[in-house]
Amino acid sequence: MNWKLAARAAKMNPSVLREILKVTERPGIISLAGGLPSPKTFPIQAFADACAEVLHNDGQAALQYAASEGYAPLRQAVADMLPWNVDPAQVLITTGSQQGLDLVAKVLIDPGSKVLVETPTYLGALQAFGPMEPNPVSVASDDEGVIVEDLVAKAKDGRFVYLLPNFQNPTGRTMTEARRAAVSAAAAAAGLPIVEDNPYGELWFDEAPPLPLTARNPEGCIYLGSFSKVLAPGLRLGFLVAPKAIFPKLLQAKQAVDLHTPIFTQRMVSAVMKDNFLERHVPTIRALYKRQRDAMMAALTREMAGLDVKFNAPKGGMFLWARLPEGIDTVALLPKAVERNVAFVPGAPFYADQGDPRTLRLSFVTASVEEIDTAIAALALTLREELALLGERRLAPEPV
Amino acid sequence: MNWKLAARAAKMNPSVLREILKVTERPGIISLAGGLPSPKTFPIQAFADACAEVLHNDGQAALQYAASEGYAPLRQAVADMLPWNVDPAQVLITTGSQQGLDLVAKVLIDPGSKVLVETPTYLGALQAFGPMEPNPVSVASDDEGVIVEDLVAKAKDGRFVYLLPNFQNPTGRTMTEARRAAVSAAAAAAGLPIVEDNPYGELWFDEAPPLPLTARNPEGCIYLGSFSKVLAPGLRLGFLVAPKAIFPKLLQAKQAVDLHTPIFTQRMVSAVMKDNFLERHVPTIRALYKRQRDAMMAALTREMAGLDVKFNAPKGGMFLWARLPEGIDTVALLPKAVERNVAFVPGAPFYADQGDPRTLRLSFVTASVEEIDTAIAALALTLREELALLGERRLAPEPV
Repeated sequence: MNWKLAARAAKMNPSVLREILKVTERPGIISLAGGLPSPKTFPIQAFADACAEVLHNDGQAALQYAASEGYAPLRQAVADMLPWNVDPAQVLITTGSQQGLDLVAKVLIDPGSKVLVETPTYLGALQAFGPMEPNPVSVASDDEGVIVEDLVAKAKDGRFVYLLPNFQNPTGRTMTEARRAAVSAAAAAAGLPIVEDNPYGELWFDEAPPLPLTARNPEGCIYLGSFSKVLAPGLRLGFLVAPKAIFPKLLQAKQAVDLHTPIFTQRMVSAVMKDNFLERHVPTIRALYKRQRDAMMAALTREMAGLDVKFNAPKGGMFLWARLPEGIDTVALLPKAVERNVAFVPGAPFYADQGDPRTLRLSFVTASVEEIDTAIAALALTLREELALLGERRLAPEPV
Repeated sequence: MNWKLAARAAKMNPSVLREILKVTERPGIISLAGGLPSPKTFPIQAFADACAEVLHNDGQAALQYAASEGYAPLRQAVADMLPWNVDPAQVLITTGSQQGLDLVAKVLIDPGSKVLVETPTYLGALQAFGPMEPNPVSVASDDEGVIVEDLVAKAKDGRFVYLLPNFQNPTGRTMTEARRAAVSAAAAAAGLPIVEDNPYGELWFDEAPPLPLTARNPEGCIYLGSFSKVLAPGLRLGFLVAPKAIFPKLLQAKQAVDLHTPIFTQRMVSAVMKDNFLERHVPTIRALYKRQRDAMMAALTREMAGLDVKFNAPKGGMFLWARLPEGIDTVALLPKAVERNVAFVPGAPFYADQGDPRTLRLSFVTASVEEIDTAIAALALTLREELALLGERRLAPEPV
């Protein structure tokens, strides 16, 4: 049988992460790898009440085909939630914000199109864009996000720049107010659209992050949001907000990919969000994740003492980013860590170009404080052993 | 702002049907247009019980991220349900079977790839394939499906042929056993893969349709199925079965588009299907739809008497296909029918090439028997008026 693959499919490769992380699903492993929200935060009873209510009051409509745009009250709720003036007609409900990336790619990327991304960037975005065969270009980035001068230098003919300003995946960094103002102005001046991804923005620990980029220039940005981190990811419910100039194309693409996002889960979430539920619920998530971030930073400080290990102090979100001593390759280190029952994600796959092999991403949200302590101790032990081996190899006589 | 669209997006047009059907959502209109299952058939109580059970027993897992392949017990249930030997590892759960079409397009279609389709074919498939810019080629078809000689003549370099053998959308026709055997053999001989779409197969009225094409040559076929017509479409739950040769690519494409189909709805449906629920439930849908098909055929026979109106006798599914007298264009007729409070779908948009303007699709599943009677009478009246107008125009003196 002549199964001839499309060129784009021939280029698809199994996700490096996916393959690596398969081993981490073994029982007994403490995983700091996956970006899994703590299931303790899922409001199970609220969902149970919402299911019963929706099926009792609107069962037939909740199970029927529905509009591709999404459930009108949910679109309104999204518009009301956002800190700039959003017309609900600009809100498209998506099957997770990952689908927003797929739709954006379909509508804006031709083969070879230049797409600017952060260094490093969200791996799932690279995977979503990939089938449309872009040319992803890394913009140099520091602790505050992309560096404006490099963005400007690379902006020409860019279809868009993909940015994750709040508690970025994978680095946990946040774009400062000054950087946002500069990036927004530079992108507008260059006519470069921004695709702003904000799944973690509500998960701030001490203070809310600065205004989104989209709020500063709504006509120049597509904004992606998600209910995965404030309610539950298993419902696959996200949204995008797009200017009128391209909303119809995104809607047509949406219609072709799955007709509409499940209306039952849209109505569930709409019912759960009544009476300002998120205002009571989200602070409990913030408090939990903050305690766990503190525990991870304390454990890293304690266990990595004396080693050249650098890590940041994320102000929210789910991830901490670390860089191990020279000579360490975190891809090679992972299986050894797994032998000691701890898993993390190597940083290199998150780079659109050459990755930094010394980096890794640690999630502080899924494991408990006790598990974080145990896991970081095991990781430090693994690292010390690896460094000892490296030292031995360096001291060993060269083969003649 | 430089919103430069991808070439594929510039070609996307608002769905003709979508635009036409907007007018039909007016209150008071009896719609024979949409392919909406009768909401009376939705097992609301069973879903309510399933939601409560899933959230009570497995709430955290049902709301967490999950495997891209789908929920293992549901994949097993799908494999068990199908009438050939299916390994659950070949089953991919999709966000509606529409998503299966999107994934197939991404993996198998290059710009300009020849894709063979029936005459006419499912409009949603043309829309799903469209963004990958295929060259769709219509295979001549009769009441039994595609004509084998024409399929063979056009098979060369075809990426696949897309077939809907059971109670096809839009025509309601079913491929006979003899035609299936011949099509399967011819496709295998030509090395032409088959993409078999079977959303309606369980909705048979008197006897089950012949074995699927995929059952005859599983290595040469991708099979798409759906829970939309046997349970409820609002959950957006479908599946595909693919040979091992291409399953991994479809899975990678799936992961990139929405990570996974909502696990909560997968577990809901898995819970509902326990204890052979479908074996008790689906016969009630068949009985209802059969009564409504009978009513529609009786009404057409009665109301269209004396007019040159042809229609088929679907043996299952949701749709009946009709052809109106010469000179009638159903696109032009629709607004006049809507004025008389009845809506249908013109047939022309379902053709990959030049459509037959005299054709239309009538759904017999959403409206009640009484509504069907009223609607067909109104449609006949509209048609008689249109024919009278046509006659007057023909009799009028030509302008000099």
